[in-house]
Amino acid sequence: MLYMVRMEVNLPPDLDPTVRERLVAAEREYSQGLQRSGRIAAIWRVSGQFANYCLFDVADNEELHECVSGLPMFPYISTTVEALSRHPNALGATGS
Amino acid sequence: MLYMVRMEVNLPPDLDPTVRERLVAAEREYSQGLQRSGRIAAIWRVSGQFANYCLFDVADNEELHECVSGLPMFPYISTTVEALSRHPNALGATGS
Amino acid sequence: MLYMVRMEVNLPPDLDPTVRERLVAAEREYSQGLQRSGRIAAIWRVSGQFANYCLFDVADNEELHECVSGLPMFPYISTTVEALSRHPNALGATGS
Amino acid sequence: MLYMVRMEVNLPPDLDPTVRERLVAAEREYSQGLQRSGRIAAIWRVSGQFANYCLFDVADNEELHECVSGLPMFPYISTTVEALSRHPNALGATGS
Amino acid sequence: MLYMVRMEVNLPPDLDPTVRERLVAAEREYSQGLQRSGRIAAIWRVSGQFANYCLFDVADNEELHECVSGLPMFPYISTTVEALSRHPNALGATGS
Amino acid sequence: MLYMVRMEVNLPPDLDPTVRERLVAAEREYSQGLQRSGRIAAIWRVSGQFANYCLFDVADNEELHECVSGLPMFPYISTTVEALSRHPNALGATGS
Amino acid sequence: MLYMVRMEVNLPPDLDPTVRERLVAAEREYSQGLQRSGRIAAIWRVSGQFANYCLFDVADNEELHECVSGLPMFPYISTTVEALSRHPNALGATGS
Amino acid sequence: MLYMVRMEVNLPPDLDPTVRERLVAAEREYSQGLQRSGRIAAIWRVSGQFANYCLFDVADNEELHECVSGLPMFPYISTTVEALSRHPNALGATGS
Amino acid sequence: MLYMVRMEVNLPPDLDPTVRERLVAAEREYSQGLQRSGRIAAIWRVSGQFANYCLFDVADNEELHECVSGLPMFPYISTTVEALSRHPNALGATGS
Amino acid sequence: MLYMVRMEVNLPPDLDPTVRERLVAAEREYSQGLQRSGRIAAIWRVSGQFANYCLFDVADNEELHECVSGLPMFPYISTTVEALSRHPNALGATGS
Repeated sequence: MLYMVRMEVNLPPDLDPTVRERLVAAEREYSQGLQRSGRIAAIWRVSGQFANYCLFDVADNEELHECVSGLPMFPYISTTVEALSRHPNALGATGS
Repeated sequence: MLYMVRMEVNLPPDLDPTVRERLVAAEREYSQGLQRSGRIAAIWRVSGQFANYCLFDVADNEELHECVSGLPMFPYISTTVEALSRHPNALGATGS
Repeated sequence: MLYMVRMEVNLPPDLDPTVRERLVAAEREYSQGLQRSGRIAAIWRVSGQFANYCLFDVADNEELHECVSGLPMFPYISTTVEALSRHPNALGATGS
Repeated sequence: MLYMVRMEVNLPPDLDPTVRERLVAAEREYSQGLQRSGRIAAIWRVSGQFANYCLFDVADNEELHECVSGLPMFPYISTTVEALSRHPNALGATGS
Repeated sequence: MLYMVRMEVNLPPDLDPTVRERLVAAEREYSQGLQRSGRIAAIWRVSGQFANYCLFDVADNEELHECVSGLPMFPYISTTVEALSRHPNALGATGS
Repeated sequence: MLYMVRMEVNLPPDLDPTVRERLVAAEREYSQGLQRSGRIAAIWRVSGQFANYCLFDVADNEELHECVSGLPMFPYISTTVEALSRHPNALGATGS
Repeated sequence: MLYMVRMEVNLPPDLDPTVRERLVAAEREYSQGLQRSGRIAAIWRVSGQFANYCLFDVADNEELHECVSGLPMFPYISTTVEALSRHPNALGATGS
Repeated sequence: MLYMVRMEVNLPPDLDPTVRERLVAAEREYSQGLQRSGRIAAIWRVSGQFANYCLFDVADNEELHECVSGLPMFPYISTTVEALSRHPNALGATGS
Repeated sequence: MLYMVRMEVNLPPDLDPTVRERLVAAEREYSQGLQRSGRIAAIWRVSGQFANYCLFDVADNEELHECVSGLPMFPYISTTVEALSRHPNALGATGS
Repeated sequence: MLYMVRMEVNLPPDLDPTVRERLVAAEREYSQGLQRSGRIAAIWRVSGQFANYCLFDVADNEELHECVSGLPMFPYISTTVEALSRHPNALGATGS
């Protein structure tokens, strides 16, 4: 099932640089793990903001929550979540 | 270039059924044309709402406006538009 | 899977009384059908408003959209939808 | 009487881990006490957020406030509260 | 039990004057009936707006909904509703 | 003259407990003084929130500001203020 | 006493021109009457909008409501109202 | 030229009392200087809030920015700014 | 002086096509007149919306209001207006 | 391609003055570099706020993000971004 999640990241500007680097590295590893397993189907940066759209493709609402709340940066992220379904005008498997 | 466009459709409940049917049919044809040409890369229904996310893949801001403003339902649609760029954590071409 | 849907109903005050009665009757029949099949697990009126909370228990995002968009009053309703998952503090099956 | 309470939890990311653990444990114990006594009729996690819906079933507005303000995490929580009543379309005791 | 209800009234400016007069008269009669029975404990006009604060003193959430949704102008009113409880600093019966 | 003031209190969760206790005690004394002199006509807790409605009955806008800005917790409070007048449907002195 | 009232005027674009002219004329006469009696101390157009700031100087909340609700365009106006008091930094009678 | 500026002041409650006193004194001196030179035409406290309306009468947008950004409390202030023009209904020089 | 004005145009979808065409033609003529005289320094379409940013370069707040309120589509437009001044980092005459 | 970016800068009032100066200097150098290369086509201060409008003229969404996220003050800035296209009423190259 698909969900569109918009994430805004609010890292404090005065975060210790080492902590920040570790956080960024952990986030990258975690995110790419989810991408490899297909649970993150796509991820885009919102141009001009420390924000992204993340298209999740997971089994259910439970797995969605596990994936999102497991993000190393989750405590610094605010999200909007929308459940998606097939659009009647979508061609072939485009909308899946 | 990619853009995420969220569209809310506000058709008046008392719209003449024939007008409505024609509008829905025209929208479907137009939308599928854009999908076939690749300018709409994906489209999803927001579950529980007369709304959708539409991922546009177009040449530039001009073409984006032409595509969106050309929607037969455009006069009934309110949009939010966000320009997208590659996410630093995206694998391969996943984010493109 | 569970979803919390808050619905605000905006029937025009000058809606033809016969149309309104039919709409109300159709809504009741439809809603009770979903309750009998278990797809609406619970429904509550928001005190002091023409609004309600509706707890859906459906197979997936697709079925959620079918159920909500099939409401006879859907053209008059604005919704907020939130996907639910098990709360870590929930006892037994209380949260399911 | 029923109330729908949506809670957003804002624990500071740099909260001392021991304090955090104690807070989480106290919250769990408190929440489960209210569930066992029936004052929390149901609790759900909002997927993708550190937030929940909590359905309270209490004697009156006073008891609601005691229950909510007694949450160990209350100083970190922002709430929206809506009083509920029976929906005219609810079947049997479903809506109670 | 007490509830604070803020009401905004949106009568269409082009409402038929006779309809409007009847509506205003019915609202007054209804409102004063609730005041006489004590279910409306107090009502104030918001200065400079077609809006009011209405303090309801009713048995429970059900009765609150019956009282508010029974207002002749209810189809033209949007409300915010807040359940009240005793303030710890309130003197004597002031806060009841 | 009457004013409806809604107050949200935002005490930092890590406020020194002694400071907090003193603040709470000072607030209580100050609030009860205003109640005794009739300048706070009524005060209610918003159920489920660290917030209240406070009905002020003061000479004028000046006295209102003095009363509100003199609250010991004022630096932690955000307010919405609405000037009230007699409602045309109010019975007797109910609305005064 | 002073109040700052911001008014947004929403005349329907298709309002009958004669009705509109009469409304505009009546508004002007009413407004200038209040200015002559000093109850409107000043009025400014918000540049680029069909909106204005209106500084009322009236006896009390009652008179404010009478003045504002008596505006011929009141049914088409939405207002925000703020009670004003003397600013501690104001010189002489500047702030009165 | 006239501008209406609404200012909300957010001094941290734990600001060092000496710093605060100096800031308040500097603000007063600065504000009264602008009043004496006529660049602040009027200033009012919003009753019940640490906020004010400030009517600026300055040469142009540049001078407005200099005046506002020069406020000693500017780093703690959030503003809304509206350019004003003569209201067609204003009498004599009332609106200037 | 410069002002940034964002305009959203809300033409009713069922506007008579002839009226609409005339309105569009009049708007174009008016807008181009302001561009030729330099009072509209630049105008851009917001991609994906019936909206635009319009940079006005006019003598003062009065002229701004005349220009904007004179737009043939003004009754259908909602605006946000911000007065601009020179940015301290702007090179040469870039920011003027 | 053109983008309108509105930026609000939120430097903490208690930022170390040396850090602040360096940040301001670095911002100026960076901003002027983008202006010299034409990627910032224009920049204006919003009068009365620590905010600006910045008109970017860049190759694509990628370059926009690089330019904006590279701002030395980016961690302290919140942005709104709108993709622009040619306005049908724009004269000559005015809108480009």
